[in-house]
Amino acid sequence: MPETMTGAEALVHSLVASGIDTCFANPGTSEMHFVAALDRIPGIRCVLGLQENVVTGMADGYFRVTGRPAATLLHCGPGLANGLANLHNARRADSAIVNIVGDHATFHLPHDAPLTSDIAGLARTVSSQVHSSRSPQEIGGDTARTVAAARRYPGSTATLILPADVSWSEGGETAAALPVPPPAAPDALALRTAAEMIRAGDCLILLGGDAVSLEAQAIAGPLAAATGATLMASFTVSRQPMGQGRLDIPKVPYPVDMAIEALAPFRQVILVNCPPPVGFFGYPGKPSLLCRPDARVHVLSRVEECPLAALRGLAEAFGPLPPHEVAERPPLCPGTGPIEPMGFAETVCALLPENALVIDESITLGIGLPAASPRALPHERLTVTGGAIGGGLPLATGAAIGAAMAGRPDRRVIALQADGSAAYTMQALWTQARETLPVTTLLLSNRSYAILLGEYAKVGAAPGPTAFGMMELDRPALDWCGLARGMGVE
Amino acid sequence: MPETMTGAEALVHSLVASGIDTCFANPGTSEMHFVAALDRIPGIRCVLGLQENVVTGMADGYFRVTGRPAATLLHCGPGLANGLANLHNARRADSAIVNIVGDHATFHLPHDAPLTSDIAGLARTVSSQVHSSRSPQEIGGDTARTVAAARRYPGSTATLILPADVSWSEGGETAAALPVPPPAAPDALALRTAAEMIRAGDCLILLGGDAVSLEAQAIAGPLAAATGATLMASFTVSRQPMGQGRLDIPKVPYPVDMAIEALAPFRQVILVNCPPPVGFFGYPGKPSLLCRPDARVHVLSRVEECPLAALRGLAEAFGPLPPHEVAERPPLCPGTGPIEPMGFAETVCALLPENALVIDESITLGIGLPAASPRALPHERLTVTGGAIGGGLPLATGAAIGAAMAGRPDRRVIALQADGSAAYTMQALWTQARETLPVTTLLLSNRSYAILLGEYAKVGAAPGPTAFGMMELDRPALDWCGLARGMGVE
Repeated sequence: MPETMTGAEALVHSLVASGIDTCFANPGTSEMHFVAALDRIPGIRCVLGLQENVVTGMADGYFRVTGRPAATLLHCGPGLANGLANLHNARRADSAIVNIVGDHATFHLPHDAPLTSDIAGLARTVSSQVHSSRSPQEIGGDTARTVAAARRYPGSTATLILPADVSWSEGGETAAALPVPPPAAPDALALRTAAEMIRAGDCLILLGGDAVSLEAQAIAGPLAAATGATLMASFTVSRQPMGQGRLDIPKVPYPVDMAIEALAPFRQVILVNCPPPVGFFGYPGKPSLLCRPDARVHVLSRVEECPLAALRGLAEAFGPLPPHEVAERPPLCPGTGPIEPMGFAETVCALLPENALVIDESITLGIGLPAASPRALPHERLTVTGGAIGGGLPLATGAAIGAAMAGRPDRRVIALQADGSAAYTMQALWTQARETLPVTTLLLSNRSYAILLGEYAKVGAAPGPTAFGMMELDRPALDWCGLARGMGVE
Repeated sequence: MPETMTGAEALVHSLVASGIDTCFANPGTSEMHFVAALDRIPGIRCVLGLQENVVTGMADGYFRVTGRPAATLLHCGPGLANGLANLHNARRADSAIVNIVGDHATFHLPHDAPLTSDIAGLARTVSSQVHSSRSPQEIGGDTARTVAAARRYPGSTATLILPADVSWSEGGETAAALPVPPPAAPDALALRTAAEMIRAGDCLILLGGDAVSLEAQAIAGPLAAATGATLMASFTVSRQPMGQGRLDIPKVPYPVDMAIEALAPFRQVILVNCPPPVGFFGYPGKPSLLCRPDARVHVLSRVEECPLAALRGLAEAFGPLPPHEVAERPPLCPGTGPIEPMGFAETVCALLPENALVIDESITLGIGLPAASPRALPHERLTVTGGAIGGGLPLATGAAIGAAMAGRPDRRVIALQADGSAAYTMQALWTQARETLPVTTLLLSNRSYAILLGEYAKVGAAPGPTAFGMMELDRPALDWCGLARGMGVE
């Protein structure tokens, strides 16, 4: 390390010290010193995205596969704005991201230059912490605190604003990593109440976050088998191990009526690291909360508590449980003929390679997946948790990079991608080509915002020409093979 | 009009009553009732963009050509977030936009459904006014107030948040347009001071906004010719009439050193509807304010005052002025040979059709334009004022629609578009194809963020592999002809 260093160099050294090994970036003028420091200091892989929503979505995918935050590097307020939608999705996935946003030099800010905007105001909408660094002396400590904030369980976006002069000035000081407290266990009363609810019968254990991990399944499976409690996954689950040998834990369905029906049998609902199930949208005359109105809903563990401790504590209340073997399910055969949702899902699941990372932004064409997935080889499914469309292709790109950085470059990434959503962040294909990533995209081109056609039907009127014009994407049809080739993807 | 109507219908009727004839949209579930109302009520042309930054950039281009606001329709916080960068550019262009953002039903909001986010917080960063409508009874008045706020001189984004239940509930009431006060004239002291500064010599009149319009040129031309004052255009000018028969009013150059040099002769600087010239970025050891430090800087008219009244009042101080004839300039010949900035600019300007709308996001390859443009046929130039890249293609699309709606579908739109910036909002090409717009895009593919290579040089170090990796776009090269074809553009 040189005896004197710039703020940018202190920032990079401190990122490395805090365990950051990947930076997803779309830098601009105010971030040039940071980029220069990345060149001088080894230890961080830098991945370019052609648009910032690709950058932030990649960081989300990276975290979901590695469990560790990557850094993002964005240019001023507009660069952050472009990446906010996938930071919103990351917030709903509880993904940890160290979000670095360059800003004007501190002396330049009062002059309201064209790019000046309220970066902190924008960042606050998606961040657990927003801090603007004030000097090269402080930026090392600021960096360590930002990484620690992002990593605090279960994970969040923490934003560090980097004024250009803090970046280029000498006097930088590196800081060591800060400890991150482990998540707390739920208290005895929470555990006792949950156990009593299971004994009362008609009980659903709703699992969020890491409560569907393989370790959690090893506890929840025997518990459910022994007690008769039902397991379901919250819509907030961002990554779920699935397929043969894993539990079949269905998600609460997306359509409100189906969700209400699926939840109707349960008088007792135990929440493990998730909120109570709520409709994706509100509809006239329909409830927002989807459990039956007389259900007893109990928080066993909050999202910031340890789901393994929660499930383990609950299982202990039922004494030593017999091991639970997941029965082998009949394998699937690839289908033939026209693409329709069930056959498509069965064919995809029949062909899935083992340990694949399946990115699901299939929307309307993906409705056959819940039934078919349990019969596929073991794999992991990542979904767009926040409802901001355009998450899929960036997630797939970041997941592939995450797998490589975690020493598993063999894991194939399969992106099941609806066309309307793909159009938002098609630039991700370019990064896939540039980094030669093992990503296969199945582009499901129904040439419409088909989900909106369904939603429009609920309005109770037949769509007229304006409405059709807002939902049909066939004038002109997007030539997806041509678009992908244009970005270097075969 | 039916005797009873929904909030959405009242909103659409009120938009029409306030003179809105175009809605750029990317709707989602929560906006379905608004879309249905557009079908039932004639008077609004609805134009779909595949990504929201295309939608907002189109509205900016529409305003610049028509002088009237269009509406935008965006889906919840993430939809707004995707469109913020071009709303930032619109803010720096003082463009009027009526920004409608759908939100969850009011009863659904407290449940923090996945798409819930701080819409008002996001909107505030780009809006002069943010209001969330509370009932179908109020939405008509809310709409009229939003349009009036957007149209208040010189123009701004005014945001109306539309909860889904306000949209679908009965009881809507239409509101008439509200009057918009005309801009005030500057006071006598401001005029007297400016006149004295001109008489003192070495005087620059810096023109912003409409102070470069044809009407303004008809006053400023004779004034400058008679008094020896120099005219320049502020970086904030969003649309400028140029070419033969129009004044040659150069913009303050973008590079800080060139700007300081260009401004160095002027001891007196009169600001007409613009801020004092400020560097696009701050640099080590360079000033933020670009006028010479001893310059007397005087605000003749603020951005919300009338530039025509300001220039007229100033001209009157010098008595009746002789008419000023703009001398004919030698015409240009199209060049041959390799594309380099000067030859490229001369060729483009030689071939420009009369009354073309030239959208300039050419960045590094466009540096020859200021010299060549005055020798082209009369045309109008629109630039990306806020520095958020990705403005060009959407601006071009919206400008073409604006020209058509203003009864001038013959005006050809020529987009001079750098490749790095085009990659941000390439989806605009699809809307151009869909609406069969007369837009020609000259895609300037240097396969790099060339401006960053220049900025990096100022850091004082040779770029290493990481830095090159962040600035070179040639691995893989984007096949722009293929991408355009993929979106239906030949």
